[in-house]
Amino acid sequence: MKDYIHGYSREETTRLNDQANSIAELLHWDSKWKEGSLILEAGCGVGAQTKIIAKNNIDSTFVSVDLSTASLEKAEASIKEHDIKNVEFKVADLLNLPFKDNHFDHIFVCFVLEHISQPKEAIQELKRVLKPGGTLMIIEGDHGSAYFYPDSLSAQKVVQAQVTLQEQKGGNANIGRSLYPLLFDSGFKNITISPRQVYVDDSKPELLDGFIKNTFTAMVRGIAEEALAKKIISKEEMNRGINDLSKTAEGGGTFCYTFFKGIAIKE
Amino acid sequence: MKDYIHGYSREETTRLNDQANSIAELLHWDSKWKEGSLILEAGCGVGAQTKIIAKNNIDSTFVSVDLSTASLEKAEASIKEHDIKNVEFKVADLLNLPFKDNHFDHIFVCFVLEHISQPKEAIQELKRVLKPGGTLMIIEGDHGSAYFYPDSLSAQKVVQAQVTLQEQKGGNANIGRSLYPLLFDSGFKNITISPRQVYVDDSKPELLDGFIKNTFTAMVRGIAEEALAKKIISKEEMNRGINDLSKTAEGGGTFCYTFFKGIAIKE
Repeated sequence: MKDYIHGYSREETTRLNDQANSIAELLHWDSKWKEGSLILEAGCGVGAQTKIIAKNNIDSTFVSVDLSTASLEKAEASIKEHDIKNVEFKVADLLNLPFKDNHFDHIFVCFVLEHISQPKEAIQELKRVLKPGGTLMIIEGDHGSAYFYPDSLSAQKVVQAQVTLQEQKGGNANIGRSLYPLLFDSGFKNITISPRQVYVDDSKPELLDGFIKNTFTAMVRGIAEEALAKKIISKEEMNRGINDLSKTAEGGGTFCYTFFKGIAIKE
Repeated sequence: MKDYIHGYSREETTRLNDQANSIAELLHWDSKWKEGSLILEAGCGVGAQTKIIAKNNIDSTFVSVDLSTASLEKAEASIKEHDIKNVEFKVADLLNLPFKDNHFDHIFVCFVLEHISQPKEAIQELKRVLKPGGTLMIIEGDHGSAYFYPDSLSAQKVVQAQVTLQEQKGGNANIGRSLYPLLFDSGFKNITISPRQVYVDDSKPELLDGFIKNTFTAMVRGIAEEALAKKIISKEEMNRGINDLSKTAEGGGTFCYTFFKGIAIKE
């Protein structure tokens, strides 16, 4: 987790927030829990999701943890800015949580397991601190779900460059499709996976900017330097690919990406 | 169209029907028109969709056309078997339809444009026979939307082999993502594209068989011989890929595929 792929730059903070804003409805219309719940948000990062779920569940209490104190500071500032008072932040390692067994009513994890080399162990640790009968909600992306028009081999290559970079760091950018077996193998019950497909065409101008440009293309741009340094892709290919990705938002293009949202119960 | 990629075998007829049955609800819950409508189904093939839409719209009349008399015979038999009486069949070329201008109230096209080298010309011809104010409904797949767990390079290669074969015949197996620009460039208005994602995991046993095995894998198997003959892929790679695709349905796997349904109005 020290080597978090998306970095901690200001651009990244903006991107993570842009991402949440443009697709917040798609991902979070059902991120709701019974009032009075004590909910662990594991891996809250800069608080991009925190401010949404905390606002939508004002009668519940969130404990939002992350390994990075720098991210937690930003998350805390963001929560203050939005005048949200039902969140407590804590530095914590997902694989070794400072909570007793069966402590939380529910757990929420978003865009976290994709960065972890031991997702099964992380889920086991989350299960430990979850009360029997409580739910684990997980949202993850899947880069194999990205396709677009006009299609472009260069654009495919930059997406693949991020998959490779994330893999080299022990993560899995294609983890979305495997949420069901992950939860099943961890002994969770009543598993429901709900794919949330973002589909963008010219009839959705807010997503042309909000998703294609400010989320997906920005994300790829955010890992460009490191992918180049590690020689995963050449500068020329990277530039061509980013250019082609941007083009899909400039009239006549389309873009598809699917997030996977899973919810399951600890027996 | 003479060189229709999926062939006309009995297995193919079964597959096309299996496909419709397992995903009928997903694709056709909103394939409904005002009663009393005269609807053209362009490229009805063996009638896999015909029997669904005709049954769901018993107060409307369908004219279902196809270039293949062999397919039309099967379609006619299927309609009789289902005791459906509101369909009239006709041999016709999509690019040169035997109907006067502004003849139909609505038009329905499903899994057809992907096989045509001139989809824009086909849409123009459909537009000609459509009344102003009438709707054109198009459903197409997109093979770039297929991904699965466990992932497999061999399985990806057989999917790509079908894309290549279809391309060599002038078709486009990835046409789904471009429906919006196709309809827009053809001058249609009020275009709405609705992606219909099939997502399968072990909680959906009917789709494990109905979609992964009997639809998608069967489709790839259906083009295997020709892809081998044209040396698009080796026999070993083909077998390995088909085997890996099947494996995703045998416990612990997942499978994703997206159909695109577009509806637009002729001004």
